[in-house]
Amino acid sequence: MNILIIGGGGFIGQKLARSLVARGQLRGQKIESLTLADIHMPASIPANFDIKTVTCDIADPQSVADTIGSEVDVIYLLAAIVSAHAEDDFFAGMSINMMGTLNVLERARSLNTCPTVVFTSSIAVFGGEVPDPILDHTALMPQSSYGTQKAIGELLVNDYSRKGFIDGRGFRLPTISVRPGAPNRAASSFMSSILREPLNGQPANCPVSKDFAHYYLSPRKCVENLILGAEIPGQDFGSSRCMMMPGRKTTIREMIDAMTSVVGPEAEELITWNAQPDVQKIVGGWRSDFEPTKALKLGMSADTSFVENIRYYIEDDQPTG
Amino acid sequence: MNILIIGGGGFIGQKLARSLVARGQLRGQKIESLTLADIHMPASIPANFDIKTVTCDIADPQSVADTIGSEVDVIYLLAAIVSAHAEDDFFAGMSINMMGTLNVLERARSLNTCPTVVFTSSIAVFGGEVPDPILDHTALMPQSSYGTQKAIGELLVNDYSRKGFIDGRGFRLPTISVRPGAPNRAASSFMSSILREPLNGQPANCPVSKDFAHYYLSPRKCVENLILGAEIPGQDFGSSRCMMMPGRKTTIREMIDAMTSVVGPEAEELITWNAQPDVQKIVGGWRSDFEPTKALKLGMSADTSFVENIRYYIEDDQPTG
Repeated sequence: MNILIIGGGGFIGQKLARSLVARGQLRGQKIESLTLADIHMPASIPANFDIKTVTCDIADPQSVADTIGSEVDVIYLLAAIVSAHAEDDFFAGMSINMMGTLNVLERARSLNTCPTVVFTSSIAVFGGEVPDPILDHTALMPQSSYGTQKAIGELLVNDYSRKGFIDGRGFRLPTISVRPGAPNRAASSFMSSILREPLNGQPANCPVSKDFAHYYLSPRKCVENLILGAEIPGQDFGSSRCMMMPGRKTTIREMIDAMTSVVGPEAEELITWNAQPDVQKIVGGWRSDFEPTKALKLGMSADTSFVENIRYYIEDDQPTG
Repeated sequence: MNILIIGGGGFIGQKLARSLVARGQLRGQKIESLTLADIHMPASIPANFDIKTVTCDIADPQSVADTIGSEVDVIYLLAAIVSAHAEDDFFAGMSINMMGTLNVLERARSLNTCPTVVFTSSIAVFGGEVPDPILDHTALMPQSSYGTQKAIGELLVNDYSRKGFIDGRGFRLPTISVRPGAPNRAASSFMSSILREPLNGQPANCPVSKDFAHYYLSPRKCVENLILGAEIPGQDFGSSRCMMMPGRKTTIREMIDAMTSVVGPEAEELITWNAQPDVQKIVGGWRSDFEPTKALKLGMSADTSFVENIRYYIEDDQPTG
């Protein structure tokens, strides 16, 4: 079992790699090698099997060809530029998110080995006129270029799978919270920072109101679901390989209450409430009411309370000292 | 008003051009020029304004740039390779249907003139696990590469419109019948030839059973709807620019009965019934039960009986002599 994580330098990629190392196997097969690829050289991690780190620019077909060899059994395609970045820089979003995905799929097709490809799509594929709740057969109607590029990736994963070029599967990630590390250019960045920074004794700004509801999943659960996502037999997907990954609808108020229940009331006082219309415009087009029936049936799951998201951050990611 | 029809050599492109010439105006503005572009030099048509014919390979960005100038107000993007062709030759489908559409949109974006782009998508974007009837907010779940490439085109038309690069609108054409001319490589080719050939005294084969139901529109109605499609104000589309064009669900039996009611029983005797599993596999994945609410609300319409489809063929297209 040879695994490649494209986007292996990102926080989900790194967590996924650590989880795979701890398991030592995937689909009941011993992991022989794990390659972490990213636009910048990813951090390596300790393992008792072969770990490689490489740079890969998915927008460049040659770089993709250099990264994906015929020995690869499972490819995780996590690499993307995030929502606000793709909205600001249309060309970069198209090159990396759309053409980058196509480059990876075309390379996989050229190998004639039908590798498994686990593609991370996004909750941002939904928006616009579709009614609540969002079901497995609700139209993708993205209201951002990022969501559009992810929706195109899903269509490609489905068609390349149908043709037998890959054994693809795509999962629309809920917004991941509490995300470790620094804020990024995702419009959703505040959905972690308003918890993470106060938990670490730092101030953070919330650009939306306390009744803003969204759909969340912890990093720990996300990684569990991504591993399951590679293990589900291809024939279990039926006529569509892509679906919403389960999450949990939560308001900003409920997120803060969960934080308070774990660490006490001081953390909330570090939050400021300055509205940001540009961020509101993007996240206001996202949806929060989902029935991810297909993923639940395939064995995926969500956190049962946002208290878990807070606890997992403290256990897994909070800087010590 | 300067109009460009890409795919202007095809039968819908030619009919659309004749209809525009007969009208002389679009959106209340006098037509100054009409350019017909296609992979092979299109036939010209007589007009009392400037008509140009040019060759254009939409898979080639330079050819697209040479074809689309900043003077163009309305672009009809009808060019594509058809379903069975795109299924047989995956690379050609991706190059022409997907990248060709992207090339046209990128050229339009580069002009900074926000031209109107009328994109023809297809009923083939629907299939798989989605329930009947298919509504405006039902997921696109294509079961062919052609349908996938058209669905990607829709997502691009929506996003380029949202960003203000174009004023796009996309219409999923029902299967057009009775189509004039020779059979083509579309899996749906028989849905016209089993009527057209007998009407012209020639034999034709039907590869599916008489109870096969599908969703049809006459060429005449299709052209009427495409002209309306360019005239609808952009703000009337809401958060999605793409929708099903109205058609009418009809069985093979009903189509033949309509033919018999117009020309008598001899025509049906020219039909043979040899099953073709490859064709059945593709068309069996298509859908026939639609509620095209949005397009109806915007003023589009379907034929009221298949007898109209037969009569329009005889009036508009049947070879004389």
